[in-house]
Amino acid sequence: MDFKRMLENNRVKPYLLKARFGVEKEGQRVDLLGNLAKTDHPESISLNDEHPYIQRDFSETQMELITPVSDSLEELFNYLSAIHDVAYQSIGKDEMLWPLSMPPELPDKEDDISIAKLKNFANVLYRRHLSHSYGRRKQMISGIHYNFEFGEELLETLFNVQSEIKDYQQFKTEIYLKVTRNYLHYRWLITYFYGASPSSEKNFFEKSSLNEPVRSIRNSKFGYSNHEDLHVSFSSIQTYIENLLSMVKKGVLIEEKEFYSAVRLRGTAQVSELEDQGVKYVELRNIDINPFDKNGISYEQAEFLHLFLIYSLWKDEGIHCDEWVKEGDLTNEVVALEHPLKHTQFEKEAETVIDEMEQLVRMFDLNVSDTLFINLREMLRDPSKTLAGRLYEKSVNTSQSEVATDIAKENYKNAWEKPYQLTGFTDMELSTQIIMFDAIQLGIKVEILDRQEQFLKLKLNDHVEYVKNGNMTSKDSYVSTLIMENKTVTKKILHQHGFRVPLGDEFNDKEQAIRAYDKFASRPFVVKPKSTNYGLGISIFKEKASFEDYQKAITLAFKEDSSVLIEEFLSGTEYRFFVLNDKVEAVLLRTPANVLGDGEHTIEELVNQKNSDPLRGRDHRTPLETIQLGELEILMLKGQGYQLTSIPKMDEVVYLRENSNVSTGGDSVDVTDQIPEDYKKIAADAVTALGATISGIDLIINDIDVPAAEPNAYGIIEANFNPSMYMHIYPYKGKSRRLTMHILYCLFPELL
Amino acid sequence: MDFKRMLENNRVKPYLLKARFGVEKEGQRVDLLGNLAKTDHPESISLNDEHPYIQRDFSETQMELITPVSDSLEELFNYLSAIHDVAYQSIGKDEMLWPLSMPPELPDKEDDISIAKLKNFANVLYRRHLSHSYGRRKQMISGIHYNFEFGEELLETLFNVQSEIKDYQQFKTEIYLKVTRNYLHYRWLITYFYGASPSSEKNFFEKSSLNEPVRSIRNSKFGYSNHEDLHVSFSSIQTYIENLLSMVKKGVLIEEKEFYSAVRLRGTAQVSELEDQGVKYVELRNIDINPFDKNGISYEQAEFLHLFLIYSLWKDEGIHCDEWVKEGDLTNEVVALEHPLKHTQFEKEAETVIDEMEQLVRMFDLNVSDTLFINLREMLRDPSKTLAGRLYEKSVNTSQSEVATDIAKENYKNAWEKPYQLTGFTDMELSTQIIMFDAIQLGIKVEILDRQEQFLKLKLNDHVEYVKNGNMTSKDSYVSTLIMENKTVTKKILHQHGFRVPLGDEFNDKEQAIRAYDKFASRPFVVKPKSTNYGLGISIFKEKASFEDYQKAITLAFKEDSSVLIEEFLSGTEYRFFVLNDKVEAVLLRTPANVLGDGEHTIEELVNQKNSDPLRGRDHRTPLETIQLGELEILMLKGQGYQLTSIPKMDEVVYLRENSNVSTGGDSVDVTDQIPEDYKKIAADAVTALGATISGIDLIINDIDVPAAEPNAYGIIEANFNPSMYMHIYPYKGKSRRLTMHILYCLFPELL
Repeated sequence: MDFKRMLENNRVKPYLLKARFGVEKEGQRVDLLGNLAKTDHPESISLNDEHPYIQRDFSETQMELITPVSDSLEELFNYLSAIHDVAYQSIGKDEMLWPLSMPPELPDKEDDISIAKLKNFANVLYRRHLSHSYGRRKQMISGIHYNFEFGEELLETLFNVQSEIKDYQQFKTEIYLKVTRNYLHYRWLITYFYGASPSSEKNFFEKSSLNEPVRSIRNSKFGYSNHEDLHVSFSSIQTYIENLLSMVKKGVLIEEKEFYSAVRLRGTAQVSELEDQGVKYVELRNIDINPFDKNGISYEQAEFLHLFLIYSLWKDEGIHCDEWVKEGDLTNEVVALEHPLKHTQFEKEAETVIDEMEQLVRMFDLNVSDTLFINLREMLRDPSKTLAGRLYEKSVNTSQSEVATDIAKENYKNAWEKPYQLTGFTDMELSTQIIMFDAIQLGIKVEILDRQEQFLKLKLNDHVEYVKNGNMTSKDSYVSTLIMENKTVTKKILHQHGFRVPLGDEFNDKEQAIRAYDKFASRPFVVKPKSTNYGLGISIFKEKASFEDYQKAITLAFKEDSSVLIEEFLSGTEYRFFVLNDKVEAVLLRTPANVLGDGEHTIEELVNQKNSDPLRGRDHRTPLETIQLGELEILMLKGQGYQLTSIPKMDEVVYLRENSNVSTGGDSVDVTDQIPEDYKKIAADAVTALGATISGIDLIINDIDVPAAEPNAYGIIEANFNPSMYMHIYPYKGKSRRLTMHILYCLFPELL
Repeated sequence: MDFKRMLENNRVKPYLLKARFGVEKEGQRVDLLGNLAKTDHPESISLNDEHPYIQRDFSETQMELITPVSDSLEELFNYLSAIHDVAYQSIGKDEMLWPLSMPPELPDKEDDISIAKLKNFANVLYRRHLSHSYGRRKQMISGIHYNFEFGEELLETLFNVQSEIKDYQQFKTEIYLKVTRNYLHYRWLITYFYGASPSSEKNFFEKSSLNEPVRSIRNSKFGYSNHEDLHVSFSSIQTYIENLLSMVKKGVLIEEKEFYSAVRLRGTAQVSELEDQGVKYVELRNIDINPFDKNGISYEQAEFLHLFLIYSLWKDEGIHCDEWVKEGDLTNEVVALEHPLKHTQFEKEAETVIDEMEQLVRMFDLNVSDTLFINLREMLRDPSKTLAGRLYEKSVNTSQSEVATDIAKENYKNAWEKPYQLTGFTDMELSTQIIMFDAIQLGIKVEILDRQEQFLKLKLNDHVEYVKNGNMTSKDSYVSTLIMENKTVTKKILHQHGFRVPLGDEFNDKEQAIRAYDKFASRPFVVKPKSTNYGLGISIFKEKASFEDYQKAITLAFKEDSSVLIEEFLSGTEYRFFVLNDKVEAVLLRTPANVLGDGEHTIEELVNQKNSDPLRGRDHRTPLETIQLGELEILMLKGQGYQLTSIPKMDEVVYLRENSNVSTGGDSVDVTDQIPEDYKKIAADAVTALGATISGIDLIINDIDVPAAEPNAYGIIEANFNPSMYMHIYPYKGKSRRLTMHILYCLFPELL
């Protein structure tokens, strides 16, 4: 088939870059000194053997991070970063991930390398076989597997612009076979650019077989490969299947998956089914861990591989398939064993391929990173710019192990710096980032249906749940959220159920509201627009009001809304109760932005100190907001006789705001354990009365030591149907309440 | 107690007019000629004996309409009108309600008056007793019962400004006792103004006892009263209870409720409990049906009664309680039997009371209708302006029966004119009006929690459901509505479940959207802002598009929204499937505004003809909108070579709009029975896939005769979580589908 012509067809062009990607990345757990971990796989990553994102490979210490299949490289890297975050926080603060393909120093005795303690015994047996066959040391090498599938629309269009092959599955298989052969033929280029296993650590080789550094031990005969007598032909799917099956039959391989080719044809449960069902995707297995990227592979590398696969489809191949592949194997072995700082002996050939790939990009007007070809040519010109070159050069003055430990420490530091963030998804709302983190940790599959709208699909086995904004779920009825959205209706229902709410009326007419002066103005009261926005139009009268002030307040409120509420003002402290499934899971006290004096520092200094907390930031992308020093704050200080340079006394609390919103720099203090049960029962029962499952309900409490049953002990202000969760999870003070976990257990009770 | 002083206290003033009201209104069913109906109570009013709004009184033909307790007279009359609407439509087009207290001509034989066929046999037995004791004819008199309760805040404040009585329940009882005594003393005023039973029809009296017309037969000894030897003292609650119980003991009354006083003290199940529990409200029973108001009582009358009760509390009473009441009885008997066109002999006393009432209004600055006192004085000056006077004067030339029949016909006509409206609530959305109608008919209690927001509380026994906008309920989960609200998410989920949806992408960046030209523009496609509002920013390309046009469309869409969808355009006919509980309940075809030629009339004339349908109106307060003849319509005609004066041929359809929205004058055609089951299954299954209970899902179908399983037979455009219901209930053509009833049965399955 003339793939060149097919690809050049105009109908194909819009879909050329459409593809699906997946990455598996292995890596050894080590302690903070870089020694292989002696601990077990973390318990917090449940679902053990079947976890979709985080598993063990050969050994108990070898973590395998698996991305979901992604429609774009952006998405792929978002997931890969996020899964790294989860892996880091799951292994805890005493461990890190080793950033190299070659393992850290191994135990003296090979048997001290612990095989993964999997539940499924067949999996353990397979690993035991590998130990016997290859030795445990070799199995400790880690790498990247890059799964690649051409886009369905691309394949369908290619299929439609040809007439040679009538069967679509067969057509796809031919596509992938050609790609595989060319990939194997040219893969030495990848070894040159991205090979990154120049040296081994102590105890890796029983007797050192390599005296000089190379580009990639892992991609050489010294690495992770089958015994040499193993040959599988990629000339047709039939021969591929036959060769592989006969090898298993002969006992050369214990299972099909023991075939360690640089490319595997994938898509069916059994290799034998590939003929009928067609190859669905290829798995590239020759990628070393990139030490210089925290994900073990850089975006540019992934982009190169994508382009390289399109090139492999486009580029004419040698007439004799098997020889073509064999040539590739030989070249690759040479390149893998070259000194990392030396030019490759195939430099000219490499330049030709890079020229052709660049041509391809121009011809098809493909959208790739500006730096991609610049960097490739730079690496050709200067071997010390390749991954192996860089790693080796850095190691010369110290040791590869020390370099790796430093890199691991840096990654560790970054992973722990803002634990509330999920790297790759930091544009999303905090609560959504946290619930995604938890879902990944629990082994629930996460799909983003609408990123801007914080719309997730969560899947555990066959059980699907949709979640928007972290806690809008199937567990709440539509009308219960509409009730909570409507303050008048909320109050009416709570009142009818016997809860205390501020008494008051709704007015849709200014004159009528003014006429109600006598009714409200002789006691503390509040005037507010029915739909409050950031407190606009609200007037609070903590004493009675004059008729003029009353009128002014009414006028102000009617400017914001056509409906205005006037209600009694309840004095006391406001607490936020987070209720889930008839149970209070957290209670929070919010206090206005403030600093605590130490008799030494100025207010401005104290604010800066407080703001340096990584929990504080801007625009709701951190659990707390930084305290501002704007007009309002300065005015508030003035009212207390202070300015920014004043030095408050030891233990004096100076407030910089009147309102207690976290969004204006307020503090969140968890008081769940301090609030008596009777108030918790009020909150939970009130939410039940509203028919809601998830609600943040605000109670004004006069004195928590007075029983809730006493008259006027409390009042319910409002109930929120999408209550913020992160302020409970990362409070300024007090215990963290992992509400996102509660939400997930509520959605997936089978996890309990 | 000095009630005058208490009432004048400043703290009391804001609450003076706070009260709760309820009305029971009896009325005989008659045929369209004014003859007493021979049919049974309508079956559509279910729940028989226990219906909260519509019951039978003494006879099978005597309907009793009962309002819920209302916090204002406005609310009271809203419900009273609405219940009348339901009653009228429930008795059907062959019957009307008799507008007089005195029944229409009764059967010659008294036994032919049919006692109400109630399920509870005790109720039947009680009516049999009444037949024996008073004769069936007298029981056929109808009237208004006006239930009145002072506002809780008013009573509490009054209680707090005195110290004489320590017990709140006792205090309330004293209040109502005083009001009752004064009411009974002065009630002749009501008989004068609003008495409205001057004559009786044939067969009412066995031998005519009255030769001259009077003001109120019903309020005289000839009316609906106990035998004369019955006296109950209102001097204290103890004597009241004693007197009443002793009368039951003696057998003078068979039950407490047989005591036909003009005022009853109410609030407890048994009269004997009134002492401990206190009187809760009073029931005024001396109100004749007002023939001139379709509700049987006018707002002004109700207002007068309210004021009269406040006056009764305020006004000093005679020292000897029983005599004071007795005087009232005597005066009332005189006034009731006066000629309706004659001045009353108590005119001077009447003027004094009216003066004092007006003083009261001024003193307390009470808000009452401007015309109230003008009309009262007018009636005093001219007896022909009283209700009895008016009815008598109208009857002189024909007969009272004919006048009553004419009035009934007028009420009948009004009740049937716009059957989709619920009088009293016409400011609410049509779907809400209709579901309220159905709920009232089914005997489900309806409370409006937020009128502007169409928020209802429905209650059947102890089962409460909340409903917003007619079909936002507890039966839908929150997230399913969020899914439907989001077009991208809806499409993704439907696609994942194997349904056909228009393929396409969401773009958040204009450049990227423009770059997708090759992908979309070679086939029919649509560009639309993600959140469409009234079709703004949508471009439809039914053929492929030039790059310029494509760019323009993208720019246009991005002006409306930051997210833009580009998707393939599906050709075919769009149908709206209304799905409830996994079942398609209705399918609608919407066609653009159009007229059907007859070869005679101009387009303008045809439009005017079509618009005269009472189903058509403006602003969604009718099931269909009137067709406009604005610029757009004229332009559309021009495009077809027409103008307003053109005369289309017989059976030619001329379209005045391109879009098929009902809101721009389009037609709605019910095609539920024409759509094959396989398409209905697609619609129902798709809604299930979205996790929704109630949805209006739009399918494009190429040809309904082609099986849905054929490739590209259909496509799903969108799903709506608050689908319009009235267009299915009152379609332009085809069968009505009472979706509101389905919603209610879904919410209250116990009704089935």
